[in-house]
Amino acid sequence: MAQQGITPRTTDYSQWYLDVISAGELTDKSPVRGCMVIKPHGYGIWENIQADLDARFKATGHVNAYFPIFIPESFLSKEAEHVEGFAKECAVVTHHRLRSAEGGGVEPDPSAKLDEPLVVRPTSETIIWHMYGKWINSHRDLPLLINQWANVVRWEMRTRPFLRTTEFLWQEGHTAHATQDEALEEANRMLGVYRDFAHETLALPVIPGVKSATERFAGAVETYTIEAMMQNGWALQAGTSHFLGQNFAKAFDVTFQNANGGLEHVWATSWGVSTRLVGAVIMAHSDDVGLVLPPKVAPIQVVLVPIWRKDEDKERVLDFAAAVQERLGAHVRVHLDDREKMKPGAKYFEWERKGVPLRFEIGPRDVDGNSVFCAKRTGDKKFGIPLDDGFLDRVLSELTSIQDGLLQAAKDRQAANTHRVDSYAAMKEHMAANPGFFLVPWHDDAVTEREIKDDCKASIRCYPMDSQDDVDGKICFYSGRPATHMAIFARAY
Amino acid sequence: MAQQGITPRTTDYSQWYLDVISAGELTDKSPVRGCMVIKPHGYGIWENIQADLDARFKATGHVNAYFPIFIPESFLSKEAEHVEGFAKECAVVTHHRLRSAEGGGVEPDPSAKLDEPLVVRPTSETIIWHMYGKWINSHRDLPLLINQWANVVRWEMRTRPFLRTTEFLWQEGHTAHATQDEALEEANRMLGVYRDFAHETLALPVIPGVKSATERFAGAVETYTIEAMMQNGWALQAGTSHFLGQNFAKAFDVTFQNANGGLEHVWATSWGVSTRLVGAVIMAHSDDVGLVLPPKVAPIQVVLVPIWRKDEDKERVLDFAAAVQERLGAHVRVHLDDREKMKPGAKYFEWERKGVPLRFEIGPRDVDGNSVFCAKRTGDKKFGIPLDDGFLDRVLSELTSIQDGLLQAAKDRQAANTHRVDSYAAMKEHMAANPGFFLVPWHDDAVTEREIKDDCKASIRCYPMDSQDDVDGKICFYSGRPATHMAIFARAY
Repeated sequence: MAQQGITPRTTDYSQWYLDVISAGELTDKSPVRGCMVIKPHGYGIWENIQADLDARFKATGHVNAYFPIFIPESFLSKEAEHVEGFAKECAVVTHHRLRSAEGGGVEPDPSAKLDEPLVVRPTSETIIWHMYGKWINSHRDLPLLINQWANVVRWEMRTRPFLRTTEFLWQEGHTAHATQDEALEEANRMLGVYRDFAHETLALPVIPGVKSATERFAGAVETYTIEAMMQNGWALQAGTSHFLGQNFAKAFDVTFQNANGGLEHVWATSWGVSTRLVGAVIMAHSDDVGLVLPPKVAPIQVVLVPIWRKDEDKERVLDFAAAVQERLGAHVRVHLDDREKMKPGAKYFEWERKGVPLRFEIGPRDVDGNSVFCAKRTGDKKFGIPLDDGFLDRVLSELTSIQDGLLQAAKDRQAANTHRVDSYAAMKEHMAANPGFFLVPWHDDAVTEREIKDDCKASIRCYPMDSQDDVDGKICFYSGRPATHMAIFARAY
Repeated sequence: MAQQGITPRTTDYSQWYLDVISAGELTDKSPVRGCMVIKPHGYGIWENIQADLDARFKATGHVNAYFPIFIPESFLSKEAEHVEGFAKECAVVTHHRLRSAEGGGVEPDPSAKLDEPLVVRPTSETIIWHMYGKWINSHRDLPLLINQWANVVRWEMRTRPFLRTTEFLWQEGHTAHATQDEALEEANRMLGVYRDFAHETLALPVIPGVKSATERFAGAVETYTIEAMMQNGWALQAGTSHFLGQNFAKAFDVTFQNANGGLEHVWATSWGVSTRLVGAVIMAHSDDVGLVLPPKVAPIQVVLVPIWRKDEDKERVLDFAAAVQERLGAHVRVHLDDREKMKPGAKYFEWERKGVPLRFEIGPRDVDGNSVFCAKRTGDKKFGIPLDDGFLDRVLSELTSIQDGLLQAAKDRQAANTHRVDSYAAMKEHMAANPGFFLVPWHDDAVTEREIKDDCKASIRCYPMDSQDDVDGKICFYSGRPATHMAIFARAY
């Protein structure tokens, strides 16, 4: 295949994103409208995200389970807001059999029409709370702390790989508690897990905050979010955690007997992140050469490229490369690219576009010198690393420095593109020329929120938790009324 | 909840299986016909199976990817045998939106009817080979070694937890090769991976063999299988690997340019195991007390039960138990059951029914003696284990001895219930009284195979690979014609 160029970010940021994904072999279009195929290199990123998050969930007392992909149609109507938010665009199963069609092919068999259609889960609150109704009887059954790794489907008209697809992969935590305080604590704890994970593993500085009513999850009392800034200054919602109050417990009549023998409705949370995070990582760190990955989620952290011209060098170069691989293998995700009939330059090009953090070039001179020649995906000058006793530590420290460097660059970018403005005119002018996060005093009002969105495409990303003390005495940047919150406005994916 | 008794195996083996699952809190019925909920303790077994298998797949050069859950209806018709085998019973998506219904509730929106219905994947050969057609151009693109962890749906009328459910979880490997030999080698390699995994991890001795044409995967040239024996002598197909020849490459027109520049169709394999394996583990090892799990897949390998009567003992017993947990935690899946207001006996009962291999009872006297009092799920007498330098090794060796003991017991049972018979009458008589595996000389013939199934409910499980040399000169136990294979007949799940 001809090697495709990558559109520079400044020319067309959206096209750049698609080009990076294509050049990095992360996804492909599928024959099913709105669904992507996640290719091995893209899926490898998701596997690393899963493993890291799963350990964090377990460390906070959660266990995994699995609930059916199908939800009876009638379940969706039980929580009034939930049905408005989710039931409208979803895949509906109406038949359970195909039959041969006249003229060839197959068609749904009319005799196998379901009595009640089934919906492919857009999210699982309804079926899980139906089950919780069977499992929860007493305060001794609480808290119930369950997570599910699953695929979900929300019919989307405009899709973009990872960021918005009809089917996507995610995890959804669903917890049940005896008191409001415990549920609130859990919702906030999991937001903290997401924030730490984004920071430590994805090298993404994120802003934790509360969603406005307009942006709240359908069926939640309160939605907490972490918002990340992409390189074009747009926001990307990277994870949400919901305090559901007793809404689902009431809809599915889930009560427990408290210590005094009285019956109470259970308190709930749910929280999730999805393959969208892979899109966030790509957009936040990559450059005009292609994909850049934080080492902690890179499917390959170190690639070894052996180089030889003369046949007599081949064996000793490959042997040396294999020894390097052996030495790192237990600690680092290392790949030896021993493809024949492919020039080293072509390999460099491919692995750069796949975002591999470290490339070790290994030629006869490196073998003679007992060292590797190292190129950093995020660096400029190459340098030698001797294969002495400190080799592994040195490799690990180079990986750490890349991880830290990406985080610092993202923090700097976020700081440089976060603005405090006092008037809507100032935000609108700035937003058009130079999108970013705008931290403003705000009088909570869904109507004016809508006006702003219609006027300049900016929405409230969150009421950042760290900034709410600043609101006292301020007036709303838009309406001039007393401010109720400090809000971040931004354009968003 | 009242504690439910477990029906003894000899009374009703099917009910015993359901009781073990219920008492072990492995699954629950869902509101969706044929779909189960996998509860945390059941899902934990699957997680351990996944982790072990995934490492084996990666060690043999495979990578994971993800393909859409939906398959366009027309794809299923492209491979003629495949559609016969799979298209008939599957979930069909016909609409992408619900609307509010008159009289309340929701209903499929007629204005959102899909132009082409989508099928929820019963298996992914068709959509994957559609994609392979885009990805494979040259011999340099081969072999392509991809696995997918996913949920699949096959509409089932009679279901049984884990063994047969409408939705189930599985992995499906799909590989593409330049030559028939390489594809055959791959299909056999993966059968070997399954056999080793069943043996080493599930403590299940399995018989590798070839399926008869009747039992072959729809679309395969040859299906390889591993067959396990359950405690009632019935067979359970535990995993299959298929040599698909060029059938899917031809159906989806997938060719590659060989080294000489000519175009050839690609050779294929696919192979899979599913949550059915959890059912196999349960059925093979459990007893009339409840679940018995091989340590390698047990979600909890060691449970610690602290015991105290006097308040002054509570703290030191709990501290000691926490120290034991700390000491084992990095090497063993250990759980400290520190629930208050629950008697030790009730805890023992619960963990026995959940199949935890080792229980350590820790009371004041154990603290004084710096030891734990150990009960093995598969043993009779309890014994002390001192917390000396050898403690961890001793715990690991007790776990190994349980794992080995379960494998040996299963091997012995399989040997005792495998019979060589020379006449159909002998098999039929034996099968009615004492089901097992019957190794017989057989003349391959779908018609007589059907006759036997109708007459005594036994089917050909496989032509075992190890026994085919024995066929020379033998005559078929049923028809008297020259034998073509040695076959194993059994009743099967």
